[in-house]
Amino acid sequence: MENETIGLVVRSSGRTGVLHQLTGVIARHEGDITTVEIIDNWPAEARTYFEVVIAGDPGVLVEDLRKLEIVRSVEMVKTFQRIYGKRIIIMGGGAQVGQVSIGAISEADRHNIRGEHISVDTIPLVGEQKLADAVRAVARLPRAKALVLAGSLMGGDIEAAVREVRQQGLLVISLNMAGSVPEAADLVVTDPVQAGVMAVMAVADTAKFTVERLKRRVF
Amino acid sequence: MENETIGLVVRSSGRTGVLHQLTGVIARHEGDITTVEIIDNWPAEARTYFEVVIAGDPGVLVEDLRKLEIVRSVEMVKTFQRIYGKRIIIMGGGAQVGQVSIGAISEADRHNIRGEHISVDTIPLVGEQKLADAVRAVARLPRAKALVLAGSLMGGDIEAAVREVRQQGLLVISLNMAGSVPEAADLVVTDPVQAGVMAVMAVADTAKFTVERLKRRVF
Repeated sequence: MENETIGLVVRSSGRTGVLHQLTGVIARHEGDITTVEIIDNWPAEARTYFEVVIAGDPGVLVEDLRKLEIVRSVEMVKTFQRIYGKRIIIMGGGAQVGQVSIGAISEADRHNIRGEHISVDTIPLVGEQKLADAVRAVARLPRAKALVLAGSLMGGDIEAAVREVRQQGLLVISLNMAGSVPEAADLVVTDPVQAGVMAVMAVADTAKFTVERLKRRVF
Repeated sequence: MENETIGLVVRSSGRTGVLHQLTGVIARHEGDITTVEIIDNWPAEARTYFEVVIAGDPGVLVEDLRKLEIVRSVEMVKTFQRIYGKRIIIMGGGAQVGQVSIGAISEADRHNIRGEHISVDTIPLVGEQKLADAVRAVARLPRAKALVLAGSLMGGDIEAAVREVRQQGLLVISLNMAGSVPEAADLVVTDPVQAGVMAVMAVADTAKFTVERLKRRVF
């Protein structure tokens, strides 16, 4: 039987140790957990979402989860990967983030129609430390593939954070702006709409666009 | 000692059962796990991110995690809640999603400057079933507070999905459009930029705007 990724929503009583019990059952079935979300965690009830790669019959795993005393229901659902897919993250000043998002959303629309799954996530932020923290946190976000830095001036610790997340495999596109961030990015783009479009093209399997094959790094 | 939410990145060997072992240590310390992300899960290495509410000294928990044979390093980091905060989700047709995002991003910028943490996440999608699936999945997304449906025609199973997620406490704003979705939403807004602004105002603690207190439901 081929390995299959399944999505499970487990409703249980809510208390410390819920996740430990649930993951114990999944480990016994040699299920490989690729995603977990704590949807709710109240004293009265917890809802936990898992994506699990499993070789055998998922029905047996579901039955064994239901046998736990704390579990009230287990429901199989579609996975986030199938619904929201790859994520482009855009952060910086509101004016520029908005323009980059217009380009990225329009381009994602064109690829999603052809079977891709790309979503565009944004956060407007001010301040060197807040931006540097947010850049570093992108490396911990599930399914994040590319980051666009949209602003007029970024440098200092933001530049250091950009170099760190690039080392962890993230593609970083910077608007052409003041400060040292453009020097640290994979790609520098002057037009914010084009920056958003290029970010999507770079991660879409339906696009013929490879950053490594570009002859210029600044547009 | 007051309860504190801490962020932890744990690097370990990667294999089935990692999460079960890590959550066992956290449960022993009566840590309440509010967020988990599987950052990487390769045979050679896994990286797992936790947000844990803990009453005692987090240093002792960190030390006990380090004692596990599978664990290579444990790092304390800032939490997603402190960085990306509440999420507004916008989905539908690319043209409208882009315009709603402009409004939402500009408005989030104004509130984030005053100490709020609001991010704006979007996905352009076509088709009744894909949209209905994506609407239902919002209820499983961490920190999602409001959903804006941005399109020209939405009904059928999307309407059913909207009623389901509203019951789970999500605020749903619909553009004024053809189909039955506007009837099922909390609020109907004609101008897409205003729809984005209102979505952010509704979830921002820095705004004086309460959907329940509005005398009209359609704008």
